[in-house]
Amino acid sequence: MPLDELAAELSAGALVTDRDVIGTYSKDWALFSHVGEAAALVRAASVEDVQATLRFATAHRIPVVPQGARTGLSGGANAVEGCLLLSVAKMNEIVEINTVEQTCAVQPGVINQDLKKALTQYGLAYPPDPGSVAISSIGGNVATNAGGLCCVKYGVTRDYVRNLTVVLADGQITRVGRPTRKGVAGLELSQLFIGSEGTLGVIVEITLDLIPALPDPLTAIALFPEAADAASTVCDFMATGARPSMLEYLDGTSIDMINDYGDFGLPSGMGAMLLVQSNGDGSLEHAIEEMETFTRVANACNAAEVVFSEDPADSELLVAARRAVGPAGEKYANDHGGGELIDDVCIPRGKMREFFTRLDGIRAEHPHVLISNAGHAGDGNMHPCVFFDAGVEEATEQALAAFDAIMALGLELGGTITGEHGVGYLKKEWLARELDPVTRAMHLKIKDALDPLGILNPGKMLGVL
Amino acid sequence: MPLDELAAELSAGALVTDRDVIGTYSKDWALFSHVGEAAALVRAASVEDVQATLRFATAHRIPVVPQGARTGLSGGANAVEGCLLLSVAKMNEIVEINTVEQTCAVQPGVINQDLKKALTQYGLAYPPDPGSVAISSIGGNVATNAGGLCCVKYGVTRDYVRNLTVVLADGQITRVGRPTRKGVAGLELSQLFIGSEGTLGVIVEITLDLIPALPDPLTAIALFPEAADAASTVCDFMATGARPSMLEYLDGTSIDMINDYGDFGLPSGMGAMLLVQSNGDGSLEHAIEEMETFTRVANACNAAEVVFSEDPADSELLVAARRAVGPAGEKYANDHGGGELIDDVCIPRGKMREFFTRLDGIRAEHPHVLISNAGHAGDGNMHPCVFFDAGVEEATEQALAAFDAIMALGLELGGTITGEHGVGYLKKEWLARELDPVTRAMHLKIKDALDPLGILNPGKMLGVL
Repeated sequence: MPLDELAAELSAGALVTDRDVIGTYSKDWALFSHVGEAAALVRAASVEDVQATLRFATAHRIPVVPQGARTGLSGGANAVEGCLLLSVAKMNEIVEINTVEQTCAVQPGVINQDLKKALTQYGLAYPPDPGSVAISSIGGNVATNAGGLCCVKYGVTRDYVRNLTVVLADGQITRVGRPTRKGVAGLELSQLFIGSEGTLGVIVEITLDLIPALPDPLTAIALFPEAADAASTVCDFMATGARPSMLEYLDGTSIDMINDYGDFGLPSGMGAMLLVQSNGDGSLEHAIEEMETFTRVANACNAAEVVFSEDPADSELLVAARRAVGPAGEKYANDHGGGELIDDVCIPRGKMREFFTRLDGIRAEHPHVLISNAGHAGDGNMHPCVFFDAGVEEATEQALAAFDAIMALGLELGGTITGEHGVGYLKKEWLARELDPVTRAMHLKIKDALDPLGILNPGKMLGVL
Repeated sequence: MPLDELAAELSAGALVTDRDVIGTYSKDWALFSHVGEAAALVRAASVEDVQATLRFATAHRIPVVPQGARTGLSGGANAVEGCLLLSVAKMNEIVEINTVEQTCAVQPGVINQDLKKALTQYGLAYPPDPGSVAISSIGGNVATNAGGLCCVKYGVTRDYVRNLTVVLADGQITRVGRPTRKGVAGLELSQLFIGSEGTLGVIVEITLDLIPALPDPLTAIALFPEAADAASTVCDFMATGARPSMLEYLDGTSIDMINDYGDFGLPSGMGAMLLVQSNGDGSLEHAIEEMETFTRVANACNAAEVVFSEDPADSELLVAARRAVGPAGEKYANDHGGGELIDDVCIPRGKMREFFTRLDGIRAEHPHVLISNAGHAGDGNMHPCVFFDAGVEEATEQALAAFDAIMALGLELGGTITGEHGVGYLKKEWLARELDPVTRAMHLKIKDALDPLGILNPGKMLGVL
């Protein structure tokens, strides 16, 4: 591979051949995902760098793995054998914030939370808030169609993308999507790139639709001896016509891990907890009403206790507790042999009760692992975590089996293997199980139409269709 | 063409060869759109009828024009030479309303308003409300990504589609989209079919995401001597963080036509009018606040009068007036030589002021036609209507020139040629002007991947890319 040729086309210092640096850039946060040996790393400083890299890759038929902040959980950003890693993390400028159109244009490397902060002074908001909000980039959020805690009311990344500038496999550049709030001129190709995990092109600029700043929410928690009652509360509460801005679930195991990680004031010994917020769309009265409805419903569903606070500091602490479930799990894993596999099934809300019961069955069948469960209950998006001693073969085998059993259960209940974390490397065999043969064939035809040499992130999402 | 073969595969009576009936089914509401001679009409009664028709069409390489209620304004449903017209209008069952998941499944022929009515008793809503809400079908709404009056707050058809069952060109059937509220398993192929105007497949079932019933809105109107001041009011009002559930514009010519059509209580002699609604997300207090903000902003922008009503009957009359702009224009056209061409440009909100001024220029340059203007001001989606005597050659030429000049102006101001009416036959040359060569090529590659024989609605949307 004539890397000199490539270096000559790139910004100074963009081509990296140092093996240590390449090693760092060769993987995301997924466990059990193959990491190949990359030929080189391009840290693109400009659109031109991205184009030059893809022209070179096309000319020499070299695989390219596009990367954002590498915080993914499915191995989508991992190196494949002999590839060029193409990082757009350095392209991190907020290009424009347009208060009249209520849009912004950003480069892909902008960190989600940095954008949120920048918008505050304009009274505007970009709602999507994946767990990785503080460290993941907008480009990666778009490439994986990231979700988060706000989705139950505010939707996912896809819902905020007005248009994308993308570089295709052969280095050509174009803008897809709409210039305006509404638009139906041609096929909506931007939606094809959202969630495509680097398999169809490289996103180099994103125009997002924004909304007025979100009002401060009220927060309530409900504690349940039985997880199943939390599930019923979710369904009954949503059926009242409530529009909570957050509706999160933590099981007892998750709560214990969080309490072990830090003091967020959570009680112990509970079966499950719901954390709900309402911002009443700017009406405090309406928010209070929704919290009262929640309290009534939870009590009717056998809640042990419902606590409702108007103090913003309390709210922040409770949300921080919910967000701590990730690092708390990591700490638990580090203290117990290092193994952790995070599921991401999304099921119909009405099936959550059954899901909880059957998850207990999976726990019983896999005694060498510990399975916690937390998730975005309002959307039925569950993140069971399988913890295990990675040094013990039997535990590792059971962990992989339990991880799979949870996906199989998700599909059986009419759900999907992945609500927001993506397919990447980790779930590619499962994608083939979820999609029917006609849809699988359509995926391959579209991939072939847009990336005929198959150089973009090969062997990942579409790898076994 | 061995139509007997086809008839044998279809439900009894589904194949129609009567020329009069075929004639009726050969066109939608567009003017100046070519109408070809269809070989036959299939009125599908089932999914199997749709599959049989497409298998037959593939075997014999016959073009197929899928049709819903044929209320489109761009000729997308018009017959092409020698085609099979494939109407799904008779497939009009509401398959399921699921109150726990807040979804419904419908066949494509269900009329939008019928669905809305059916949902009322469940306390649920499907917001999209194109002007044709009473006569257009959900399948057609999805195939054209229909908009409407509520979009400024509630978005367009695309935002409510959870999944689609589609029959492909070769008769194969599959479901695309997500089974659940969230889902990222593979490419989001449902979004490719939404707005594809029958060029990629035939939609035979739709699962829609619903929301809790919309609260009753308050309504205000503001009257302006100068259209430009209405444009400023829209921008300034939206910049306050307002979230109106409707924000509509009528120019003086449109108001005059409406007054000529019926008594809706609109004043005459005004330059322009804005019609705004707020439902305050269920808080009357919040709705009143937004109406007060609107009043303040409109007065600061030189409104002659702002009238704000809490009486639902007044609201309904005003919205009825706005909705009457279509039939009122039709009446005017019928009384003045029959010619009417409806533009559908969508521009950045901040460019509306300039758009209004430059539209006056287009009027001056085309003295043989009358141009009214109305539209969804909150989204910048404008529907200038060009009226002309279709029996007078010079008037017809000027009408076509003015229609084009408006699209050119829309593009020049950073907008799109079509915000919600679609491309169809009428704007296919313009689609080629709006899209860049790389995006055009992508369209053709995807079309070729999914419909390799090119039998689906040929010569329409993608016809000149």
